[in-house]
Amino acid sequence: MKLYGYFRSSAAYRVRIALNLKGVAAEQVSVHLVKEGGRQHSAQYRAKNPQGLVPALELDDGTILTQSLAIIDYLDTVFAAPRLVPADPVLAAKCRAVALTIACDIHPLNNLRVLNYLKGPLGHSQQEVDDWYRHWIRDGGLEAVERMIEGERFCFGDSPTVADICLIPQVFNARRYRIDIGHLRKIAGVDRHCAEMAAFKAAHPAQQPDAE
Amino acid sequence: MKLYGYFRSSAAYRVRIALNLKGVAAEQVSVHLVKEGGRQHSAQYRAKNPQGLVPALELDDGTILTQSLAIIDYLDTVFAAPRLVPADPVLAAKCRAVALTIACDIHPLNNLRVLNYLKGPLGHSQQEVDDWYRHWIRDGGLEAVERMIEGERFCFGDSPTVADICLIPQVFNARRYRIDIGHLRKIAGVDRHCAEMAAFKAAHPAQQPDAE
Repeated sequence: MKLYGYFRSSAAYRVRIALNLKGVAAEQVSVHLVKEGGRQHSAQYRAKNPQGLVPALELDDGTILTQSLAIIDYLDTVFAAPRLVPADPVLAAKCRAVALTIACDIHPLNNLRVLNYLKGPLGHSQQEVDDWYRHWIRDGGLEAVERMIEGERFCFGDSPTVADICLIPQVFNARRYRIDIGHLRKIAGVDRHCAEMAAFKAAHPAQQPDAE
Repeated sequence: MKLYGYFRSSAAYRVRIALNLKGVAAEQVSVHLVKEGGRQHSAQYRAKNPQGLVPALELDDGTILTQSLAIIDYLDTVFAAPRLVPADPVLAAKCRAVALTIACDIHPLNNLRVLNYLKGPLGHSQQEVDDWYRHWIRDGGLEAVERMIEGERFCFGDSPTVADICLIPQVFNARRYRIDIGHLRKIAGVDRHCAEMAAFKAAHPAQQPDAE
């Protein structure tokens, strides 16, 4: 398998964590999101992913899967253990809801293409863009996630799920933008705990071959 | 079960379609997103859904599920037929990718709270907000979806999946904003075909008790 990603993309970061948790190797192919106006927009890459976004997972038969959460569900179906979405339907729905809160209602608002639209066509200053970024992470998102999760080691239960897989990269983004989320006690606990796990450590942006 | 929704919310519209396809009845509770500054922000509703968004599904034991795609996966697990996510892992991933393209990369950018932020704190005109809305639906989203889907009756295969469940409400939004997507031939075909199915008809915003 080949994972088309970028070290700092939090959607690619999620898939890297999932692959590591499953113990599955994938060749990493870096798609630089900034150089040459963003290589994800090239005709060559769009032939793989019409959205022009990372990540994309290319299976050995050439099939291409896109959207990080769809890829994670695929990996969870094809590679049995450990389960990333719990078997219990209610617990599964709770894990998925946290993952989707991050993947739908925080991350896309702060995606590079959206920040570029705010700066370009809408002419906003870096300060206004940074305020936008902070607004959706903290007030719009992680405050709610803090109320949705149950644990202080993992979001739910005794092992990492798709909720933790989405949370850790989002906390990384919050930290990168110096957003104070210290008052979100459960999230801080989960972040500390997961940071010590090999699967999360090896997926960290700083550990990737294309890290700058 | 109780479905907290709003006639025009496309996330609630998705869950209504899923419930109808499964033949499952749920009492509809309307949460008016505009009146009184938005009743989804009330302490009473936030106790149910900390995100202050619709939909939320309250199970008979009082458990509350949030996030439309998590709710749809729950319904798909608990109520066996018809399957909304195919059993084949690759086909499932393709259906989920279309659903997530809409649910992550189109819809949240055009959500009411985001449009309000553009108008309020960022001071944009209605014209600029409308341009934003159109940009993310067409160029950013449905153009890619057209290339991702395979069918002209359903997005994939011979029965509706979570991809169609997300696509039809997004096409409704495009039409409401008079966005020309007539050149997206497969999407137009799926829209025409699903519009004739009872499950989709009964879920349409205009058919809801709180429609205005």
